[in-house]
Amino acid sequence: MANLVAEIIAVGTELLLGNIANTNAQVISQGLSELGIHVYFHTVAGDNDSRLRQALDIACTRSDIIITTGGLGPTYDDITKQTIACFFGVALTPHEATLQKIKDYFTYIKSDMPDCNARQAELPVGCTIMENHWGTAPGCIFQTKGKHALMLPGPPHECSAMFRTCAMPYLESLTQNCIVSKTINIFGMGESALEERLRERMQAAKNPTIAPYAKEGEVQLRVTAAARERDEAERLVTPVVDELCAGLKDVVYGIDADSLEAAVSALLRKKGLTLAAAESCTGGLLGGRITALPGASQVFKGGICAYTNQAKIDLLGIAPQLLEEFDAVSQQVAVAMADGARTKFNSDFAIGITGYAQDNGTVYIALSSKKATHCKQFQLGPNRSRVRTMAVNHALNMLRLDID
Amino acid sequence: MANLVAEIIAVGTELLLGNIANTNAQVISQGLSELGIHVYFHTVAGDNDSRLRQALDIACTRSDIIITTGGLGPTYDDITKQTIACFFGVALTPHEATLQKIKDYFTYIKSDMPDCNARQAELPVGCTIMENHWGTAPGCIFQTKGKHALMLPGPPHECSAMFRTCAMPYLESLTQNCIVSKTINIFGMGESALEERLRERMQAAKNPTIAPYAKEGEVQLRVTAAARERDEAERLVTPVVDELCAGLKDVVYGIDADSLEAAVSALLRKKGLTLAAAESCTGGLLGGRITALPGASQVFKGGICAYTNQAKIDLLGIAPQLLEEFDAVSQQVAVAMADGARTKFNSDFAIGITGYAQDNGTVYIALSSKKATHCKQFQLGPNRSRVRTMAVNHALNMLRLDID
Repeated sequence: MANLVAEIIAVGTELLLGNIANTNAQVISQGLSELGIHVYFHTVAGDNDSRLRQALDIACTRSDIIITTGGLGPTYDDITKQTIACFFGVALTPHEATLQKIKDYFTYIKSDMPDCNARQAELPVGCTIMENHWGTAPGCIFQTKGKHALMLPGPPHECSAMFRTCAMPYLESLTQNCIVSKTINIFGMGESALEERLRERMQAAKNPTIAPYAKEGEVQLRVTAAARERDEAERLVTPVVDELCAGLKDVVYGIDADSLEAAVSALLRKKGLTLAAAESCTGGLLGGRITALPGASQVFKGGICAYTNQAKIDLLGIAPQLLEEFDAVSQQVAVAMADGARTKFNSDFAIGITGYAQDNGTVYIALSSKKATHCKQFQLGPNRSRVRTMAVNHALNMLRLDID
Repeated sequence: MANLVAEIIAVGTELLLGNIANTNAQVISQGLSELGIHVYFHTVAGDNDSRLRQALDIACTRSDIIITTGGLGPTYDDITKQTIACFFGVALTPHEATLQKIKDYFTYIKSDMPDCNARQAELPVGCTIMENHWGTAPGCIFQTKGKHALMLPGPPHECSAMFRTCAMPYLESLTQNCIVSKTINIFGMGESALEERLRERMQAAKNPTIAPYAKEGEVQLRVTAAARERDEAERLVTPVVDELCAGLKDVVYGIDADSLEAAVSALLRKKGLTLAAAESCTGGLLGGRITALPGASQVFKGGICAYTNQAKIDLLGIAPQLLEEFDAVSQQVAVAMADGARTKFNSDFAIGITGYAQDNGTVYIALSSKKATHCKQFQLGPNRSRVRTMAVNHALNMLRLDID
C-alpha cells in the first residue's frame, strides 16, 4: 500500500491547559517520517467523549491510520479506549493475562489494587495488544472499516518506548518500503554551523535523505533510505554515513548512540578502564547520568560532590592553601579535584568540575589520567540548567577524546 | 462575553515531521487557562493552503477565537497570512511603518533586503498589529464574521513574548472572568487511590473545580475557580484547598510547589539546617536534583557516590566487617552510609541510599540526624529509571516528614 496517511490524536485535558507539551506527537511523527508514512494533521482533544468523537470523525475522512495517545489510565476521566471502541462499534472485553499482570504488580508493591485499575485490562475484541513494560496500561491495535487504530498510553516514556517497539513494526508491515535510518551523533558543532556546511548536500539528497535534529546541547544527523529490501536500503545508507563521518571527524561521538554518556561508557568498558568524579557546580549530575546506564558499576567507581571548601579539603585532600590562593572556581582547584578523585577512588580517569552554575557561568573541567591532567575553561549558559547540562556534556566529551 | 472558546492552529511542516514539539500551543494554552478562556482543541497543519483552510473551516464551527502560530516568515512556503486573509475574505495591504522597520533592520545589519521580506509587511486591512521586538515578522489581530483571528510567528521565543505582551491584553478585554488556580502537591498516594477517595467530591465540584494530574512519581490536585474579581475567585479556592489538605494530611508536601526537592530545600533553609548524601544505586541523582535549585549551597553540603565497597570503606568510613557480614544492599549498610556522610560533611541531616537499580529493585534508604538514624526498605520499579527517581523521591519525603 503506498502513500499511507496517519493522523495523531493526543487525548488529555492537561495538554489543553498547557500543563505539558505534546512531545508524544513529535516522537511518533519522527517514527512515521522514517517509515515514509505521511502526517498531515495533529489534533489534541480533551478527556471528553463528544469532542474525541468529533476528532475521530474528522480523522476518518482524511487518514488511513489513527494513532491516539493518552486516556488509557485507570480513572474515570480516562475515556479513550471506551470512546474509540464505541465509535468503531467494537466491544471491550476483559483480557485475563493483562489483568493478572496488573494484579501481580500490586501484589509485588504490597498494595491493594484499586477496583478502577481493572478497567485497564479491558480491551477491544480481536485487538492486538501492545505490552507495556514501562507502566500498567497496555496499548492496542485494531483494524476496522478500512482504518488502522492504534492506542498508546500518555506518559511520554511509555508512549515512546511502546511506539518504537510495538507500533513501528506493525506500521512498517503496512508499507511496502523498508526503511533504514542511521543517526550520526554530534557534539561540539551547532545546528546552524552544521547546516551552513552541509546545506547543499542535504537539499540535494533524495534517497537517502539527510536531516539535522537539534537535541539539548548536541545535534544529530539522520540519514534515511527507502528500498524494497532492508539490504538494499542499508547499501544506500552506509556509504553516506561513512562519508559524512569522515568529513565531520572529531565532533562525531557515535552512530545510533543513546547519549554521550552511553558512548563514553561503552568506550571505557571496551578498554577496561574506570572513571571517578569530583563535582561541585554540577552537584552529582555527571554521576547521576553515568549511573543511569545499566552496568555502570563496571566503569564508574564513584563520585564526590564537594559543595563546600571544607568538603574539598576533607574528602578530596585539596590543600587549604590552594583554596586560599586561588578561587574555588579556578583551573588549579579543578585539577586538584580531578587528581584527588582519581587517588581516592583509584580509578584510571577522574573528572573534576567546578564553576558558577548561575547565569553565563564560567566552568573549569579537569581530566586526570595516569599520563597527565589537563583542564579547560568554558563559558556556558544562558541559565543554571543549561550550564550544568553542558558542563557534564563537555566533561564527557573531553574524556571521549582522551580515550580515543 | 462568557464561555469564550479558543482554538490553536499551529502551522508548520517541521511539526508534522517531528523536528520540533509544539511548545507554542503549550505556552498559549497556559495563558488562555489563566484568562478562563476554554481550549477544546489544538490542531497542527503543514504549510499547505488547502489543509490550512480545512483546519480553519473546522475551527470556525466550534471556536470564537482562532490563534495561529507560524508561517509568517518571508519565504514562499510561509502562507499563513495569505491563506487566512483569503479564507476570511480580507485583503492584504502593505503597511508602511512595518516595511520601514524591516528595511531599517537590513540597513543595520549592512545587508540588502531580499525582495521576499517585503511580504512580511503586508497585513490584513483594518487589523491591529502586534509588534515583534524579538524578530522581523509582525503578528496581527482582526475581527470578522463574529470570530477573533490572531496570528503569531512560529519561533518559540517570539511567539511566547508576543502572546504575553500583545495577545493576552486583547484577549483579557474579551472576558469578564478572573481565574484563580492552586495546586496541591502530593507524594505517597497514587492517582488511583486519590481518586477512589475523592471521586464524588471531584465530580460534584463545579466552581471551584478539582482535578487530579499524575506527574512522575507524584500527583497534583488542581483547584480552580472563576469569578468577576480576583478576590472573589480566591475566596472560592482557599477554603477548598484548606479542607482537602486537612483531609490528606501527611501526603501533602506543598501548595504550588515546584518539586519535592524545592519543598524540602525551602524547609531546610527556613530552619537553618543542612543536608549531605551518600548514594549508591542513585549515583548522585539526589545531589543532582537538589543542586539544580538556585541557592543549593545554603542547604546542601555535598555528597559521596560510593559505587564500590572500597569507596564505602575509604570515603564513608564503613567498617569492612559490616560489608562482609551484611550485603552492600542492606539496612545496616544504608544506616552506616547515612551516618558516615553526616560525619564527613558535618551536616544536620544525611541520607544514605543503597539498592538494586535494575528491574523491580529493593532499595534501602536511611536518614541520619542528631537525634536518630532510621531506615526504610522499598520495592520500587518497574525499571531502572523509575527505581532511581522514586528512591530519590522517597528519600526527600522521609526527610520532609522528619523536619516537619
